[in-house]
Amino acid sequence: MKEDILYHFALGTGTHDFPALFGDVKFVCVGGSPSRMRAFIAYIAEELGLGSPGCDYPNICAGTDRYAMYKVGPVLSVSHGMGIPSISIMLHELIKLLYHAKCSNITIVRIGTSGGIGLEPGSVVITRQSVDATFKPQFEQVILGKTVIRSTNLDEQLAKELMECSKEIGQFNTVIGNTMCTLDFYEGQGRLDGAICLYNEEEKLQYLKEAYDSGVRNIEMESSVFAAMCNLSGVKAAVVCVTLLNRLEGDQISSSHDVLVEYQQRPQKLVGYFIKKSLGKME
Amino acid sequence: MKEDILYHFALGTGTHDFPALFGDVKFVCVGGSPSRMRAFIAYIAEELGLGSPGCDYPNICAGTDRYAMYKVGPVLSVSHGMGIPSISIMLHELIKLLYHAKCSNITIVRIGTSGGIGLEPGSVVITRQSVDATFKPQFEQVILGKTVIRSTNLDEQLAKELMECSKEIGQFNTVIGNTMCTLDFYEGQGRLDGAICLYNEEEKLQYLKEAYDSGVRNIEMESSVFAAMCNLSGVKAAVVCVTLLNRLEGDQISSSHDVLVEYQQRPQKLVGYFIKKSLGKME
Repeated sequence: MKEDILYHFALGTGTHDFPALFGDVKFVCVGGSPSRMRAFIAYIAEELGLGSPGCDYPNICAGTDRYAMYKVGPVLSVSHGMGIPSISIMLHELIKLLYHAKCSNITIVRIGTSGGIGLEPGSVVITRQSVDATFKPQFEQVILGKTVIRSTNLDEQLAKELMECSKEIGQFNTVIGNTMCTLDFYEGQGRLDGAICLYNEEEKLQYLKEAYDSGVRNIEMESSVFAAMCNLSGVKAAVVCVTLLNRLEGDQISSSHDVLVEYQQRPQKLVGYFIKKSLGKME
Repeated sequence: MKEDILYHFALGTGTHDFPALFGDVKFVCVGGSPSRMRAFIAYIAEELGLGSPGCDYPNICAGTDRYAMYKVGPVLSVSHGMGIPSISIMLHELIKLLYHAKCSNITIVRIGTSGGIGLEPGSVVITRQSVDATFKPQFEQVILGKTVIRSTNLDEQLAKELMECSKEIGQFNTVIGNTMCTLDFYEGQGRLDGAICLYNEEEKLQYLKEAYDSGVRNIEMESSVFAAMCNLSGVKAAVVCVTLLNRLEGDQISSSHDVLVEYQQRPQKLVGYFIKKSLGKME
């Protein structure tokens, strides 16, 4: 290919010097919300001693509103929107970006939000395996109309290292557990408060308890394709999500804005600490 | 339920007066990109004689960056991000919003972008049926781990009325055809330029030609769940997408920025004309 246009990033090899812009990247953090990923880059810059207070970080994907991307030193922070298709487009273009930039030894971590099962809200889950709605560790990719099954394994060693970091921080409850990845937020996750709902509370609770018994500790909407694509591309990957509520106790996310903001900082804090430690920057 | 929090809109029945805010809504236009949906509200305001030049429209969902929402008179304009899960969350909360606001006789139109098959780029496709990756007019919804098949029929009369509007405008090629809705942009649509690709050009072209022969004229990533949910909720719905390229001739979206911007205005122009006509506001 003469030129590669990463359409949803509004970047291209014909218009941007990828090795110069991204060649030093070692850690990529991804999350659903653009503003959260901007907050993360400011946080990690300060943690690594690379930022000045009040300094603003330009959005590298300013030419589009599909995704937002920020960089400081060896850390790239990218938003991916909500759901498997949205993160899948981002990952295709991100993996091509890292390839064109000749990056090596990349670690990529999704820092997100999720619904917990049987955990106190605000707990952080490091994903052991991402499982589908029937609790199987697999992702069904449709290719030219045919379904192909892909493995959703994540890096075991990386999960353990992250768990170790959480113990050293000692500020919030963290567990390693399975993460169920669904195709929607309401019916797919057994919520009773969607616009359409054809089951009752008993059926919902039975399903969530089966999930818990199979090892599932939280539910989100991106981890399976994230694990599958990182696997296939040989990139070391982890998923670290905070739980905003305990689904055994309700469906609505009704904690106050301030409480939710603090919860959402927990995966950032954990992954920030891990990056700092990996770079040998701990005091 | 005492209070209903529409979490991804950052709106709630306990904090917002839905009938006062949204009770007069008759047309809802939805599209992937927040900035496109903001541009649409400014356009339609001017068309309906409800706006003043240079007037800004506040984002009703300013408390979140998941979606953006704008309103002028009877028209609501909402972004939905990319992919089935992302639009499905938005639609659950939109349908609840319209219900709480006691709206009736709503028409909802998705105005989007797509890849065309066998059409000149810039052509507009009004969807007859939304079909899956095997060309069947159905959507598979996973509920509590079990797959349920839902119909993806759209309003025939509304499609015809939109086609009539396009003839009256007479500025761009418009067809009624089937729209294939996929779970991803690269492998699911037979692109050869993704980070992962396990098929060749011949297999790709064979698949796209089969799609064409079955009546498919464009490919996007939201129409199936949009049709299924509007069907189940009894809301009159249409899908109007412009094609940014002809997939029989390539995979990359390489037209200039200005050309793409003009293409993206075509569904807006068509649906704007339709709303104006429906309201009896044509000169």
